[in-house]
Amino acid sequence: MATEPFLKPGPAIILVEPQLGENIGMVARAMLNCGLTDLRLVRPRDGWPSAEAVATSASAEVVIENTRVYQKTSHAIADIDRLYATTARPRDMIKRIVTPRQAAMELVAATRAGGRCGLLFGREAKGLKNEDVVLADTVLTVPLNPQFTSLNLAQAVFCVAYEWFQAQDQTPPSEITLPKNIHPATKRDLIGLFEHLETALDDSGFLQIKEKRPNMVRTLRNMWQRAGLTDQETRTLRGVIKSLVRYRPPSDD
Amino acid sequence: MATEPFLKPGPAIILVEPQLGENIGMVARAMLNCGLTDLRLVRPRDGWPSAEAVATSASAEVVIENTRVYQKTSHAIADIDRLYATTARPRDMIKRIVTPRQAAMELVAATRAGGRCGLLFGREAKGLKNEDVVLADTVLTVPLNPQFTSLNLAQAVFCVAYEWFQAQDQTPPSEITLPKNIHPATKRDLIGLFEHLETALDDSGFLQIKEKRPNMVRTLRNMWQRAGLTDQETRTLRGVIKSLVRYRPPSDD
Repeated sequence: MATEPFLKPGPAIILVEPQLGENIGMVARAMLNCGLTDLRLVRPRDGWPSAEAVATSASAEVVIENTRVYQKTSHAIADIDRLYATTARPRDMIKRIVTPRQAAMELVAATRAGGRCGLLFGREAKGLKNEDVVLADTVLTVPLNPQFTSLNLAQAVFCVAYEWFQAQDQTPPSEITLPKNIHPATKRDLIGLFEHLETALDDSGFLQIKEKRPNMVRTLRNMWQRAGLTDQETRTLRGVIKSLVRYRPPSDD
Repeated sequence: MATEPFLKPGPAIILVEPQLGENIGMVARAMLNCGLTDLRLVRPRDGWPSAEAVATSASAEVVIENTRVYQKTSHAIADIDRLYATTARPRDMIKRIVTPRQAAMELVAATRAGGRCGLLFGREAKGLKNEDVVLADTVLTVPLNPQFTSLNLAQAVFCVAYEWFQAQDQTPPSEITLPKNIHPATKRDLIGLFEHLETALDDSGFLQIKEKRPNMVRTLRNMWQRAGLTDQETRTLRGVIKSLVRYRPPSDD
């Protein structure tokens, strides 16, 4: 698969004894969402290939077609030099435990340095066996609501893959997008609008109490300022003011 | 539901026209994983309650049982003062766009300030309609592989809920946990081990080349240092050294 330049070849996802093809398909989809393509299965219960996996993969064929199947975990991880084991519950082992975010930073750094990384996930209900956790350098645990840590397999994979993608991603955390040919208002546009409105309100008597005027003007200006107006919108608003000024309701007297 | 003290009452998750009960159940599970419990549905296609939703919720009853159903999006969001609309594709609207991580920081701050926040998610295949996006203050887009942005509904909810949870979570990014009654080796334990080994290797001739000795000793010490040994492990290793020193292979001569 051709990927964006910032997508480095990512870590392998290794599922040990996954049970449902549906879950494997959802894992493949979650992986491709985050630019990962190297999926490996150890003794999938219902065999491989799997029609159920294809159905839930939402066309992540590049992952499904390249999935490799192994009889032993040790064979599936043979080429890996840095392995993380994902567990929900603490094991009685002396191993470093990291969050997915920390793991992602380490994975990006290790991959850039030419390392080959892998992430081990266990069976849907019971997770990894201790004999598989032992093979890993580090344990990865997703911080979750301590009263409900039962995470769907595809969610667990998505979580780690998502953190991997974010660790490389250049997307600004927040931005305003403007459609083509739309420009933000300049300060001249805005001040023109402010003065237009204030003159109209002076004329209408709204700002006639002299000692209250500066505060009221500040309130109004701040309000418009916050709206992040475009140049077109300032013109529209000046049209609104003009129209309101021109309109004279039928007099009661 | 009783929650840990750091779990503030979280934002509402509002699904507009969700199609499959299975997906709603997976959403409920993902929400509870991250301590969220306020689920609202607008015109769920297959009705509510849903046996399929219960089946895939993995016992997230507290969410399923309290789910509220609305006929209009405007009714579902009536009590919300800060609304994010989740979209995969850019809309031709002048609205701020944020990542889930940025949104989570804003949601935590707004919730702490007493605000009531909501997150709007659209139909599985097509996402939100523009008329619903218009109701939101901010657009939320998950940065994903630009060539495969088709995110499962439950994954999208999990992603945002996960970021919400992480924004409040106190879990250290990395830690070593030691089982009870296990203690890390003190420097005295380690230096005792180092000197024991070095004496044995002096005796065995392994360190006999004088000019190479300092380097070799440093290499060995660094290696053990990196292993993060426990006090018991240093004792075990000293036993190993003693045993190796004592053993005399049958002589060939």
